[in-house]
Amino acid sequence: MDAEYIKSQVRDIVDFPTKGVIFKDLTTVFKKPDALRMVSDELYERYKNAGITKVVGVESRGFILASIVAYKLNAGFVPIRKPGKLPALTWSESYKKEYGYDTIEIHQDAITSDDVILLHDDVLATGGTMVAAYHLLQGFHPKHIYINFLTEIVMLDGRKEFPEGVEIDSLIKL
Amino acid sequence: MDAEYIKSQVRDIVDFPTKGVIFKDLTTVFKKPDALRMVSDELYERYKNAGITKVVGVESRGFILASIVAYKLNAGFVPIRKPGKLPALTWSESYKKEYGYDTIEIHQDAITSDDVILLHDDVLATGGTMVAAYHLLQGFHPKHIYINFLTEIVMLDGRKEFPEGVEIDSLIKL
Repeated sequence: MDAEYIKSQVRDIVDFPTKGVIFKDLTTVFKKPDALRMVSDELYERYKNAGITKVVGVESRGFILASIVAYKLNAGFVPIRKPGKLPALTWSESYKKEYGYDTIEIHQDAITSDDVILLHDDVLATGGTMVAAYHLLQGFHPKHIYINFLTEIVMLDGRKEFPEGVEIDSLIKL
Repeated sequence: MDAEYIKSQVRDIVDFPTKGVIFKDLTTVFKKPDALRMVSDELYERYKNAGITKVVGVESRGFILASIVAYKLNAGFVPIRKPGKLPALTWSESYKKEYGYDTIEIHQDAITSDDVILLHDDVLATGGTMVAAYHLLQGFHPKHIYINFLTEIVMLDGRKEFPEGVEIDSLIKL
């Protein structure tokens, strides 16, 4: 993967979603066939020998690469979603945001203790959502959980929010 | 594709999201590696010679197969999202729901008039969202727009909501 090329395709959006934030827009990566292929193939290369059985994507931008790599790894795809979206019985996890709390959910029958999981989201910023997602998955006592981000905003140091020893990887550091 | 096998993997959820509705849960298809592979390969087979340059997925369940088939077709992936989610300049389209209105958005630079588009969502029910998505895409004057659903709930006859002559396809009829 040509990381510099991918970085050059990321679009900075100033003051989104709120004033003072520079949002990393990845739609400009996904809409380019060569960039989409490059990041998908790189993600596959990194996990192709890990015995992944389920790729878990976090709603909704995390679904994009999670489903492609699930297909390529011959694994299943599992969504983690916002409250009330998943129709069957769910486990849920709440976590603190800058103002108030958010909740995410997963189907109770989505994962088994035999699964080796790749948990994916598009951006690692402060880490709140993915730490909650990691805790949700731990509840299933799977064989292993790998965590991957397409991009990591290094300055925000979201890695420090995860328990020690958790394997976190990102394709691009911004 | 073994359509009967895929149908057997769809889960009926009674009274979701509201009383009297039987919701077609496709997470049970996506979590099974063989079923995910089967529907992805079938979708690819149907459009592999259509010259597709962009695959457009509707938030958020539509992202799953749309991104896989974008990858396989060597096309770009473009999201249509709920209001306020896309960070750059958007076009939007509102449409009538059972109670009130909904709006969907697409980035203004997501599509060009040179594109051949595959517009995908997971379920064709009453058709409201996808008709709005079709109108949004027409605004770009692309070369062609194909429409595909993973599943179609035949009884609801969502096809009648689309303009005449629009090519609509579904992998599974329920």
